[in-house]
Amino acid sequence: MKTYTKYLVVNTKKNKEIVNITRAVAAAVEESGISEGLCLVNSMHITSSVFINDEESGLKQDFLHWLEELAPEKTGYLHHQTGESNADAHLKRTIMGREATVAITNGKLDFGPWEEIFYGEFDGQRNKKILIKIIGE
Amino acid sequence: MKTYTKYLVVNTKKNKEIVNITRAVAAAVEESGISEGLCLVNSMHITSSVFINDEESGLKQDFLHWLEELAPEKTGYLHHQTGESNADAHLKRTIMGREATVAITNGKLDFGPWEEIFYGEFDGQRNKKILIKIIGE
Amino acid sequence: MKTYTKYLVVNTKKNKEIVNITRAVAAAVEESGISEGLCLVNSMHITSSVFINDEESGLKQDFLHWLEELAPEKTGYLHHQTGESNADAHLKRTIMGREATVAITNGKLDFGPWEEIFYGEFDGQRNKKILIKIIGE
Repeated sequence: MKTYTKYLVVNTKKNKEIVNITRAVAAAVEESGISEGLCLVNSMHITSSVFINDEESGLKQDFLHWLEELAPEKTGYLHHQTGESNADAHLKRTIMGREATVAITNGKLDFGPWEEIFYGEFDGQRNKKILIKIIGE
Repeated sequence: MKTYTKYLVVNTKKNKEIVNITRAVAAAVEESGISEGLCLVNSMHITSSVFINDEESGLKQDFLHWLEELAPEKTGYLHHQTGESNADAHLKRTIMGREATVAITNGKLDFGPWEEIFYGEFDGQRNKKILIKIIGE
Repeated sequence: MKTYTKYLVVNTKKNKEIVNITRAVAAAVEESGISEGLCLVNSMHITSSVFINDEESGLKQDFLHWLEELAPEKTGYLHHQTGESNADAHLKRTIMGREATVAITNGKLDFGPWEEIFYGEFDGQRNKKILIKIIGE
């Protein structure tokens, strides 16, 4: 059994932004030398997400608009009594999910035709870390 | 360490439909010969889900009605400017999740009393693939 | 390769409640003797969740209020025709997620600065089980 661990750092220009990280994850799989196994990719922060969907710029904007409807940026959250102002980012990240687990088959991410891995930032403009953990053989 | 990979194909009669795939996943676990490990089950498409919930027909309809409220089929999504018409399916799949990871203990899916695995299709009536990846010993 | 399995039992005082289980999971990792691998933590029930977010009491209340808006406790769910009254709990659990998969690095949960693991109960006041499955070496 082999394991491989890698950390990515992301610092988005906008406060809320969706970033395609597929190439960086695929590179980690190649570096790992693991041909059959599982690859966990997760945000190490609680106001951002890792998720799998489609690389299409309109859809990425649709996601951000939709999240604003379901989990709006507003006053009134109890979390803000601590001095924070990002409760909506905690909720948005919950809808999008913290992590993706991807199969590795024949040394590659075992993806369907349109699957791409994204980092969803909902309280950005500062350094955030993503964890890639690969186990297999 | 052993690994086992299997692909299922689903083609739903309806555009939106929830299909119980527990038996197919349990069969894959048996075929794998793995008695202790993890079993990843994921949709290989970005408009459908794999999730764990209850085998009850009313609840399955409740899920579809509820998803229609939270992520309605409508015009106006930016994604539709590409000629697509299924932005709602991308959002619905996001709420339901892409994947489930299930423990294997003593050669079986280690489930609570009511856990069943479902494929949630939100843009169907065509062949879609589900990936099962098992690792363990 | 090693595997380790542990079950936790939770019985919340309130019907809906969020419980921090980070210490119990960290203890299981230590008991496992596994230094590199993956740790799956999942609810074994379909009306409760395991998720990762922030240990802040206001935010935990924000989560419960928000879930009540998105998936309200109400009559009219088809699931209730079976005699059940907890359809909202199935929906709430879906938003929060069933499971978390966490990397283990150097014998510890490989967490960012604020990550904590929670059990989200949406139909409680009775014994519920959580599964911890660790694989690695």
